Amino acid sequence: MPINPDAEIEITAFRWVPPGAQGLVKDLRVRWALEEAGLDYRVRLIGLDRPEGYEKEQAFNQVPCFRDETVQIFESGAILQYIGEKSETLLPRDPQGKYRAIQWTYAAVSSVEPFVQLRALLNVVFADQEWAEPAKPTFDHFARLRLQQLSDRLGDKQWLEGDRFTIGDLMMVTVLRIADRSGQLADFPRLAAYLKRGQERPPFKQALNDQLAVFAANEPQKEGAAA
Amino acid sequence: MPINPDAEIEITAFRWVPPGAQGLVKDLRVRWALEEAGLDYRVRLIGLDRPEGYEKEQAFNQVPCFRDETVQIFESGAILQYIGEKSETLLPRDPQGKYRAIQWTYAAVSSVEPFVQLRALLNVVFADQEWAEPAKPTFDHFARLRLQQLSDRLGDKQWLEGDRFTIGDLMMVTVLRIADRSGQLADFPRLAAYLKRGQERPPFKQALNDQLAVFAANEPQKEGAAA
Repeated sequence: MPINPDAEIEITAFRWVPPGAQGLVKDLRVRWALEEAGLDYRVRLIGLDRPEGYEKEQAFNQVPCFRDETVQIFESGAILQYIGEKSETLLPRDPQGKYRAIQWTYAAVSSVEPFVQLRALLNVVFADQEWAEPAKPTFDHFARLRLQQLSDRLGDKQWLEGDRFTIGDLMMVTVLRIADRSGQLADFPRLAAYLKRGQERPPFKQALNDQLAVFAANEPQKEGAAA
Repeated sequence: MPINPDAEIEITAFRWVPPGAQGLVKDLRVRWALEEAGLDYRVRLIGLDRPEGYEKEQAFNQVPCFRDETVQIFESGAILQYIGEKSETLLPRDPQGKYRAIQWTYAAVSSVEPFVQLRALLNVVFADQEWAEPAKPTFDHFARLRLQQLSDRLGDKQWLEGDRFTIGDLMMVTVLRIADRSGQLADFPRLAAYLKRGQERPPFKQALNDQLAVFAANEPQKEGAAA
């Protein structure tokens, strides 16, 4: 069980987020990677109002941050790579395998996530804006294009580069969770099956449970009583 | 002069793009990194209609692709890291310096670029859509928030981590070029000065010249005559 209050590795996560964001907050990526690698970590919880000076740790006021005795960094992609360097399970050592895995982490966060995230936001955060409904066909088009390209590339393979799961798959699966929650995978059975394979991994289940357990323990009505 | 038809490194770039995209196409990032590192490369030019089967090389039908005798990869972030591993000039060797540089490449492409890119597209590609004008205040807000956070974090430093230029700065400067071209840096003098410092580097100038020279030599009206 990698959560250990005395661990060298510390990650920063939110104490509570609204239900629509639960299970999607990006410390999930790091928790999952640490579970896959079998590395102990402790969790520092912060409120949505952020502690004073938090932007000095995370320039964009997001989570997760990561620190151990060697580095203090943010951006889940950089953190996954750092964990991958400690665990060959997640990041192959041969250059082609290594850089393909890294390639897919960038593909996930810059070639897929912005499109599916924006499409998802049109249903939620932007739903009451007058322009949201007429904008949907355009952003549907872009999100579906990227999902189709990803589906074609995955083909019948188990993982993006074949039989071996890497940080590239870990990142992509968490991006597809955003798409799935907003119904964007309905026409992409290969991606839905790939997402399912990822979510069936015991380290994923443990990481998700651990994130959700924090939120359950810190429901806002309980927070007042505990304070 | 790193362009060399016999070089081991090959990058893929477009033969021609419309003027609005010239100087922003992402092979610029890789050309710039190769210039900084002093590594020879050859250029494989493709048309906007893409060669048959190109999606097998680049899953999202974009440029650049990168190959040498060791790897064949896409995503400019992964390529910059691979070049950085060959050149300490671009990627520090101490873990904290290295992962901070990597952190900033992810920040550039996933925490800044999607917001400024979308805001830029509202002025251009989406300009004739009825929803584009009413959507501008919302997307202005998000783009300006990220630019302000980046400006605050940069502060009075020369580069994102101090005196040393890395692949993180290289990536961020190319993202700020998108923001600048659509007028988004007018209220961010620190970012404008940072962009200027980046663009004054001789390797940047060489890389930009080399990208633009290809487009100048392949203007569509000339293409018919040459075919």
